Amino acid sequence: MASSMAMEGSVRKRVVVIGGGFGGIHTALGLAKMGVDVTLVDRKNHHTFQPLLYQVALAVLSPADIAQPIRSIVREHKNIDVLMDEAIEIDVKEQRVTLRSGARLEYDYLVLATGSTHSYFGKDEWAAIAPGLKTVEDAVEIRRRVLLAFELAERQMLETGSHPALNFIIIGGGPTGVELAGAISDIARLYMRKDFRHINPSSASVMILEGSPNILAAYPEDLRKAAMRQLNALGVKVKTGMHVSDVQPGYVMVGTERIDSVCTLWAAGVQASPLGKLLGVETDKKGCVLVDSHLNPAGHPEIYVIGDLAHVEQDGKQVPGVAQPAMQMGDYVAKRIGKLLGKDRGSDGPIKEKDFRYFDKGDMATIGRKAAVAKIEWPFKAHWSGFPAWMTWLVVHIFFLIGFRNRFSVFREWAWTYVFFNDGARLITGSQELPGWDMQDGVYGMRGDITTKPLDLGSPEAN
Amino acid sequence: MASSMAMEGSVRKRVVVIGGGFGGIHTALGLAKMGVDVTLVDRKNHHTFQPLLYQVALAVLSPADIAQPIRSIVREHKNIDVLMDEAIEIDVKEQRVTLRSGARLEYDYLVLATGSTHSYFGKDEWAAIAPGLKTVEDAVEIRRRVLLAFELAERQMLETGSHPALNFIIIGGGPTGVELAGAISDIARLYMRKDFRHINPSSASVMILEGSPNILAAYPEDLRKAAMRQLNALGVKVKTGMHVSDVQPGYVMVGTERIDSVCTLWAAGVQASPLGKLLGVETDKKGCVLVDSHLNPAGHPEIYVIGDLAHVEQDGKQVPGVAQPAMQMGDYVAKRIGKLLGKDRGSDGPIKEKDFRYFDKGDMATIGRKAAVAKIEWPFKAHWSGFPAWMTWLVVHIFFLIGFRNRFSVFREWAWTYVFFNDGARLITGSQELPGWDMQDGVYGMRGDITTKPLDLGSPEAN
Repeated sequence: MASSMAMEGSVRKRVVVIGGGFGGIHTALGLAKMGVDVTLVDRKNHHTFQPLLYQVALAVLSPADIAQPIRSIVREHKNIDVLMDEAIEIDVKEQRVTLRSGARLEYDYLVLATGSTHSYFGKDEWAAIAPGLKTVEDAVEIRRRVLLAFELAERQMLETGSHPALNFIIIGGGPTGVELAGAISDIARLYMRKDFRHINPSSASVMILEGSPNILAAYPEDLRKAAMRQLNALGVKVKTGMHVSDVQPGYVMVGTERIDSVCTLWAAGVQASPLGKLLGVETDKKGCVLVDSHLNPAGHPEIYVIGDLAHVEQDGKQVPGVAQPAMQMGDYVAKRIGKLLGKDRGSDGPIKEKDFRYFDKGDMATIGRKAAVAKIEWPFKAHWSGFPAWMTWLVVHIFFLIGFRNRFSVFREWAWTYVFFNDGARLITGSQELPGWDMQDGVYGMRGDITTKPLDLGSPEAN
Repeated sequence: MASSMAMEGSVRKRVVVIGGGFGGIHTALGLAKMGVDVTLVDRKNHHTFQPLLYQVALAVLSPADIAQPIRSIVREHKNIDVLMDEAIEIDVKEQRVTLRSGARLEYDYLVLATGSTHSYFGKDEWAAIAPGLKTVEDAVEIRRRVLLAFELAERQMLETGSHPALNFIIIGGGPTGVELAGAISDIARLYMRKDFRHINPSSASVMILEGSPNILAAYPEDLRKAAMRQLNALGVKVKTGMHVSDVQPGYVMVGTERIDSVCTLWAAGVQASPLGKLLGVETDKKGCVLVDSHLNPAGHPEIYVIGDLAHVEQDGKQVPGVAQPAMQMGDYVAKRIGKLLGKDRGSDGPIKEKDFRYFDKGDMATIGRKAAVAKIEWPFKAHWSGFPAWMTWLVVHIFFLIGFRNRFSVFREWAWTYVFFNDGARLITGSQELPGWDMQDGVYGMRGDITTKPLDLGSPEAN
């Protein structure tokens, strides 16, 4: 690092990276290793390993297992400056970012990697009823709701002799929807089997409502069919071609059909982070920034947009908004900026000024505790489903977790959970209210047409 | 269990236990093993191992490491019915408890074990400024505030060239106050040493304000002195005889003296759970229920009050409100009710109708990551401090954690944290605001007389 300082003379260039997800972290670490000064800004103090968020939501893992403080990830790189803050304004002429705290950062290069968030298709009032899953806070909230639904049903059963049908509705049949559905089914059928005395948790019904004709639309047909079979085996009902017209406390409307729900989750739409729009460049209908083959928006060679926020076309298809392309874009941008600054003199030699190209190693989604679908592209091509796909998923996800401690702790939790049906992190924290449940006739519960007959479980000891 | 069912005839007796802390869990498990039907009610779905809560507050452990779902603790005991609910009314004549949900529980015996909560001495408005530590939610909130104070100072330093002095004030010098102070000092001096580029976390100052003449008032003088030495070695300032007259965002008043604070925590007063008052029996000034030597309030042999909620005198002193007496009272009450119901035919033979007697094995408090004070009463009498006391503390706390998984996971986290200075669970979740910090002149920060000179740390690489 001393030699690179000597070489550059008096004017040090600064790269500002907004977003500490896969893209932002890879950019910052790549640049830091070349001796470039980086300011990394994120609203959170932690990087979140999003592919495992659903396991926090379903109480298999704890937040700290899959989230790592950004400062600790970059600790050894003194040329990375971390700020917990939020960009609210970008002055592309002055090359300056204004943060919510009032701080202003001048940049020589700007890398936008702020990802995506839920889209309720303009119905933002649905968000309070059907939370989505993007952050650690979202995961803890979903955990609270799913677990609380069982507790409230047990209460109501004890007092009134009936309880609402335990319908869990997941809107959206992409990987997140499928993973949430499988995990809720597991909790209800396996992990909570012996926990309640008055309700029968395995009577829970999990339903995926998908608007398009297929779940897991990005997967080939054989794997989609395999996923359907595996979901059916778990008792998950999948309804495709179902356009949700309203989401209300306690139910969901599909056209004129009302589907009762003790707990509704949102896994349907995503939209790009609003930051892309601040650039004043062209975006697609989700708000993703159109970038060229160097990941620059038109007319701004000093700005890079990467990860979910970027709209990148390759071979006529859009590169998907998942972890792998984000990491690869981060690595690419670090090398490219390093080269432009004359810093890319690493052991792998100077790179050519080549275009970004996504190298697809494949894609995977789990379905409950023993099954998955895997579309493998590298090191060989294959379509796997069931247990082999699930084992592959396990190994790959442990490998890609940042930090040895997290790898070890996730491995340990999985071993306990899957082998011993362990309790995981089944904590309810925060409020004890759920949408659709309220006080009526002196008893807190969920009413209407949605009560079931009391289960005849006899005396407690008969269970 | 089959034989006990046969013996009791057609009328089954029910014991209602309110509170799933140490006392309630020990009562419920003790009774269940004798075949008595128990309904266990708690507002939370989990038992919290309170002696380690401060380690969640300071990000060494995760909530799931020290909290265990009550349903999973009692899972194998089919005669324990768990309800996540809150008692709001007790009709001692009808022997009936009304819960917040509207449910009503009839009891033959009632055990009240709802513990204690913070007392702000009538100044409830201080609670929002200086949170206390009783629940998992409290711990996560304290974690958020302590970590956020460093992040906000870093932000302000970057933008304005100065930041408020990193004063952390802990009001109250009992075991919780001392443990919080030691842990904050550790975080600032050791764990965050390399994390910031603009502020110097080890410039943080931790101060305990104690109203009485001594910290750790329940400990003998030699151990109090040892604790003071150990706190001083960690740089913690201890001020005794300091009566806090006001708690405001950003500062604390002691008489006319203003002490600035980036983060204030409350470890001063406790009061009994309000449930004791619902009984209509005599309570002490903290709201603890006066009970006789069988732990019954006067005139109610069918009601037991245990743990922090009970005022028990023994040898002219009040039994302290900590974990050990609560567990022993729970065991005692289970045996006693079992005997009264003719169920106490365990391998240890029928117990006499003897009085409750607290068997004091000693008491401990940690001071940072390598020191503690321990007043040992059993199996031998000794006063230990420093490293031996700390090792004893470690072993005892792992032993008393409920659940093998928790023991293993706490042991592992401690090993990582203490040996490798690991990052633990240093996550900030929720709001990014702190009392006393606000937007002024376009920059979010803390102002007034409390800014320090900028630290001259040079360029980022100079750190």
